[in-house]
Amino acid sequence: MFDYKARRNNLYAIMEQQGVDLVFLPKHSADLDYLTGTERRVVTFGNVAYTHHWVAGAFIHPKHEPKFVLPRMIVEFDSPNGVDQNTTIVSEKDDAFSLFKKAALSFGKVNKIAVSARTWSETTLQIMKIFPDAVIVNAEDLVNPLRRIKSNEELELMTHACTLVDNVLERVQSKVILGTTELDLKSEINFQMNDNGSKTESFDTAVWSMGTKNARDASDRRSSNPLLDGMGVSFDFGSVVNGYCSDFGRTIYVGDPSKEYEFVYNLVMDAQAAGIAAVRPGVLASEVHNATRSVIVAGGYGDWFRHRTGHCIGLDVHEFPYISEEDHTPLEVGMTFTIEPSVFWPGRVGVRVEDIIVVEENGGRKINQHPTTLVAN
Amino acid sequence: MFDYKARRNNLYAIMEQQGVDLVFLPKHSADLDYLTGTERRVVTFGNVAYTHHWVAGAFIHPKHEPKFVLPRMIVEFDSPNGVDQNTTIVSEKDDAFSLFKKAALSFGKVNKIAVSARTWSETTLQIMKIFPDAVIVNAEDLVNPLRRIKSNEELELMTHACTLVDNVLERVQSKVILGTTELDLKSEINFQMNDNGSKTESFDTAVWSMGTKNARDASDRRSSNPLLDGMGVSFDFGSVVNGYCSDFGRTIYVGDPSKEYEFVYNLVMDAQAAGIAAVRPGVLASEVHNATRSVIVAGGYGDWFRHRTGHCIGLDVHEFPYISEEDHTPLEVGMTFTIEPSVFWPGRVGVRVEDIIVVEENGGRKINQHPTTLVAN
Repeated sequence: MFDYKARRNNLYAIMEQQGVDLVFLPKHSADLDYLTGTERRVVTFGNVAYTHHWVAGAFIHPKHEPKFVLPRMIVEFDSPNGVDQNTTIVSEKDDAFSLFKKAALSFGKVNKIAVSARTWSETTLQIMKIFPDAVIVNAEDLVNPLRRIKSNEELELMTHACTLVDNVLERVQSKVILGTTELDLKSEINFQMNDNGSKTESFDTAVWSMGTKNARDASDRRSSNPLLDGMGVSFDFGSVVNGYCSDFGRTIYVGDPSKEYEFVYNLVMDAQAAGIAAVRPGVLASEVHNATRSVIVAGGYGDWFRHRTGHCIGLDVHEFPYISEEDHTPLEVGMTFTIEPSVFWPGRVGVRVEDIIVVEENGGRKINQHPTTLVAN
Repeated sequence: MFDYKARRNNLYAIMEQQGVDLVFLPKHSADLDYLTGTERRVVTFGNVAYTHHWVAGAFIHPKHEPKFVLPRMIVEFDSPNGVDQNTTIVSEKDDAFSLFKKAALSFGKVNKIAVSARTWSETTLQIMKIFPDAVIVNAEDLVNPLRRIKSNEELELMTHACTLVDNVLERVQSKVILGTTELDLKSEINFQMNDNGSKTESFDTAVWSMGTKNARDASDRRSSNPLLDGMGVSFDFGSVVNGYCSDFGRTIYVGDPSKEYEFVYNLVMDAQAAGIAAVRPGVLASEVHNATRSVIVAGGYGDWFRHRTGHCIGLDVHEFPYISEEDHTPLEVGMTFTIEPSVFWPGRVGVRVEDIIVVEENGGRKINQHPTTLVAN
């Protein structure tokens, strides 16, 4: 579907610029998916582990095709689309280190190797044993500059992932009523996402109600609290379409909205609108954060906007740059990120909204279509 | 709930024995959960990432309380049960390396440090920068010998996790009929697990039908294939109860079983029974594998039993030792592992069964209660 060869050529240019001879990316990384199309298995709460599992990944070198090394079990049972015929397959009784080393040494002299940030330490230590004199750097610094700019094909998939969650909330929102629990809603959302074609949840779905009737915070992502009259119920969930993630949020009130809820609801929506209005190529990520945050501060609720405004998103849920006070990356056309201000004041009031914005020549365009008008059931 | 201090004391004894001065475990590791009770967040398909995320974890030293270092966002939003008051919290604008280094150097001389196998390379490289002369070893070799033996309290939770999946299949199995898709069943299982109190799926639920009417293999864990007459529908799923995982499998036939299906079904059940009968303290993991496998080989289907017989299980889905040809670990009382033989012959026949067995003085006891008799709907 994508031109992986072209993506790798872009990487080779950066490698040359930075004097990086070889890149290693583990099988589970979105970087490898981006550069080769290898499918990431849905991750598991309890580790899945095979004999010689640490070898799983691929070496990327400008003068060669990507060289995969995989334990037999991943080839046999975790590769529904097959594997590259050039793959080194490591069976249970093989000498894994020798096979991995042979693959690693097939690229000639390596003075500098880039390894993906989340490569296992077990793998990293073996790589260092093979290249004792090489400098190791973070491969994220090479691949992220490519991944952060989405092509039209990628934007189509991102749009599909956003539409999917828009539709799921549309179907679920009539159930935000007394007699339903937070867990019911979480379960129903996951069911509907699956039913609508999401590969899996892009992250763990959360539903939480905040207000004066409990002291719960947004950090508890799974509770069977019943919905109560006079509370705002917030949603945070995302889908996966061809590997691309969405991340979405709304808040729906149960009962007749209090004056404070109405005020805070409008404040959070105004903050998001101000953030979107600040988006433009060349503007810094931190400036979008400040534009969003200042609305909530001016409204008197700054202490309860307790997180960054957002983050880039694509094959991963959170990608660099972050829309955050410390991140001074200039925005570029084709970047996609969330703008997700909130007021989370446990025991008092909770409101949150989240949409994905794409940077265009003339400003930010919201990809999600779900309305942000106040809904009370 | 558990006596974490006692668990750590057991670790200290192993550390002393192996000359390990300090252990680092990342926040996401089951090892850290085991030793301190810190809750693992449900993992996400798309990476979740915070500023300075690489610091997230804890140092374990015999003479000190565990020392956590966490990015502010994890403290604020991923720690519903709070964090240790001694935690070093790294905020967005902090110098993360300095704070991490200060924590790391607070334990005195470190000649040998053990790092969890799946610690991120980004973190591992920083640890090596802080301790340039220290030897780094795999912490899994220290903690797994403790984790592989389950206490009575742990067995209770494992039993709960097994009963939960037994009950879910009980509720779902009447839906294994024409008109249902594999995806419907997957979605329904996840819904029911959630509804029955599972924290999340312990791994990605799979439902697949095999037989003469398609050429599909067990490796495709998500498909919307409709169930067809004359096919065996296999299930592979697990729940999470207080962090402990189950892993469970059955096969249910749609229609009137063919002679070959019946033969293979009985063969796979006999293989499992032979495996269980071989379990006894002191027997090698590989011997249980051989006892299981030999039944299927003798039946003429050896080429289609394409994986190890099983794996230990607990806080992770796959733990050492593995019930596999290359693993010669002697079984001990209190070990829990799966026995999960299969015949996966794409385009012909597919049957699988999976239960968790606990090693007792007199042999293996199956924890799951769901029957293994042939069911055809």
